[in-house]
Amino acid sequence: MHSWIDGQPATALNLQNRGLAYGDGLFETIAVRAGQPSLLDGHLARLALGCQRLGIDADLALLRDEVLRYASQLGDGVAKLILTRGDSQRGYAPVAGAAPRRILQGSPLPTYPPAHAEQGICLFACQTRLAEQPLLAGLKHLNRLEQVLARAEWQDSEHAEGLMRDGQGRVVEGVYSNLFLVRDGMLHTADLTRCGVAGVMRGALLEQAVALAIPVQVGDLSLGDLEQADEVFVCNSVYGVWPVRGIPALSLNWSPGPLTRKLQAVARTLLDT
Amino acid sequence: MHSWIDGQPATALNLQNRGLAYGDGLFETIAVRAGQPSLLDGHLARLALGCQRLGIDADLALLRDEVLRYASQLGDGVAKLILTRGDSQRGYAPVAGAAPRRILQGSPLPTYPPAHAEQGICLFACQTRLAEQPLLAGLKHLNRLEQVLARAEWQDSEHAEGLMRDGQGRVVEGVYSNLFLVRDGMLHTADLTRCGVAGVMRGALLEQAVALAIPVQVGDLSLGDLEQADEVFVCNSVYGVWPVRGIPALSLNWSPGPLTRKLQAVARTLLDT
Repeated sequence: MHSWIDGQPATALNLQNRGLAYGDGLFETIAVRAGQPSLLDGHLARLALGCQRLGIDADLALLRDEVLRYASQLGDGVAKLILTRGDSQRGYAPVAGAAPRRILQGSPLPTYPPAHAEQGICLFACQTRLAEQPLLAGLKHLNRLEQVLARAEWQDSEHAEGLMRDGQGRVVEGVYSNLFLVRDGMLHTADLTRCGVAGVMRGALLEQAVALAIPVQVGDLSLGDLEQADEVFVCNSVYGVWPVRGIPALSLNWSPGPLTRKLQAVARTLLDT
Repeated sequence: MHSWIDGQPATALNLQNRGLAYGDGLFETIAVRAGQPSLLDGHLARLALGCQRLGIDADLALLRDEVLRYASQLGDGVAKLILTRGDSQRGYAPVAGAAPRRILQGSPLPTYPPAHAEQGICLFACQTRLAEQPLLAGLKHLNRLEQVLARAEWQDSEHAEGLMRDGQGRVVEGVYSNLFLVRDGMLHTADLTRCGVAGVMRGALLEQAVALAIPVQVGDLSLGDLEQADEVFVCNSVYGVWPVRGIPALSLNWSPGPLTRKLQAVARTLLDT
């Protein structure tokens, strides 16, 4: 499907756009089924937080309308929404009154091997570490070189995702997923106030876990915590939940467990809007 | 002057470009006078290092030719060269064989108040800290949100640049400059292996200082080092060297000193190609 810029079909972007110059913007990757965007409130809430932190003055009601219109035309697929600070001449200083630019791109729903969801996946242990930047932590902004470098570390199909740690060795997330572990019936996921992307599916699962009376802890995670985990899974807002069956480089192995299966079912429901 | 993409006049960029999607690329800001690019070898050397670190397979001889051709048409101005990994579909994984995209943009030489170079400038003490990412440190890559946030911290014209520190409080650089200090006749500048941009003018001045038998030390710098400095200056490859006369928020003041003036003259010569 054609991309849109500011609500109009377009294939190309003004070269003065600050998204290109500085990665000065945010994005959301939204699963669309039967013309309906999944988890739209969560995506727009994260985008709003990003706009607030970056000082981008976006019209969120207009964005919502545009995503809904685009999704209805896309049918089934993935809608990627990019919001940049707009155009400007050379120089880091944001130009007062510059109009943020709204970009929508559509692609087919990715087809993953069914085994990913059924038997689980292996994680590659990435050497690329996440830098600590509290001002940007949690946001899905356009500065994604760390993810590009991490994803380039493996080419084989044995690993479906990569494990990312921070400079201190803390376990943070996947390259394009968030990571959860289960120990003694409690769900753990990394605190993302120093680095990492606060995924919309992660947020939805945390909310659902609380509703289901599953004990939850958000905090720092170490490799030791992974070693002692009963279950490990990753999630994002396109594929839902994949059990992790191992990290070969670290000689770690797990079997998909009951909490993983329960939250996998929850994710399926959330995505089947 | 018109921008070029891959050597051809262009105003817009394919929306699938990874420069927009992830900031997956590098840039150089090159002063051009009388059709000649200044410090071209330095710019291309840093670009080559960036390509190596990011795994971008660029034709540097072609880039050199294109910059020379563009500069000769620009006459006097600033040529901004952006090199991205090229286009790809959704997903962080670099696509094997994707052609890197070469973008050239021209703008007039900026006009700064003559007092910046003569009496010196004041620095704003930025709260935004540079994150430590050794894999990207030194490069002029397209992930520049930290600089955008730092530059947005002040709007007044009293401060011509901002002082940036890292998460540990070390003094690193300006928002769009590198910083040097002089103490007891020795030139000091920050080590940039954890964060910061290794400016082409910084590199040229270090080289010239060695040639002029000025003692040089590259290492960690603290606010205490600034307090004890006899002279402080900033530099980049467009304006050359500006003395720093103070950081009001830190109650620090200096007068332009002899080493600053000597290197300011060196920078002028380097820019008057």
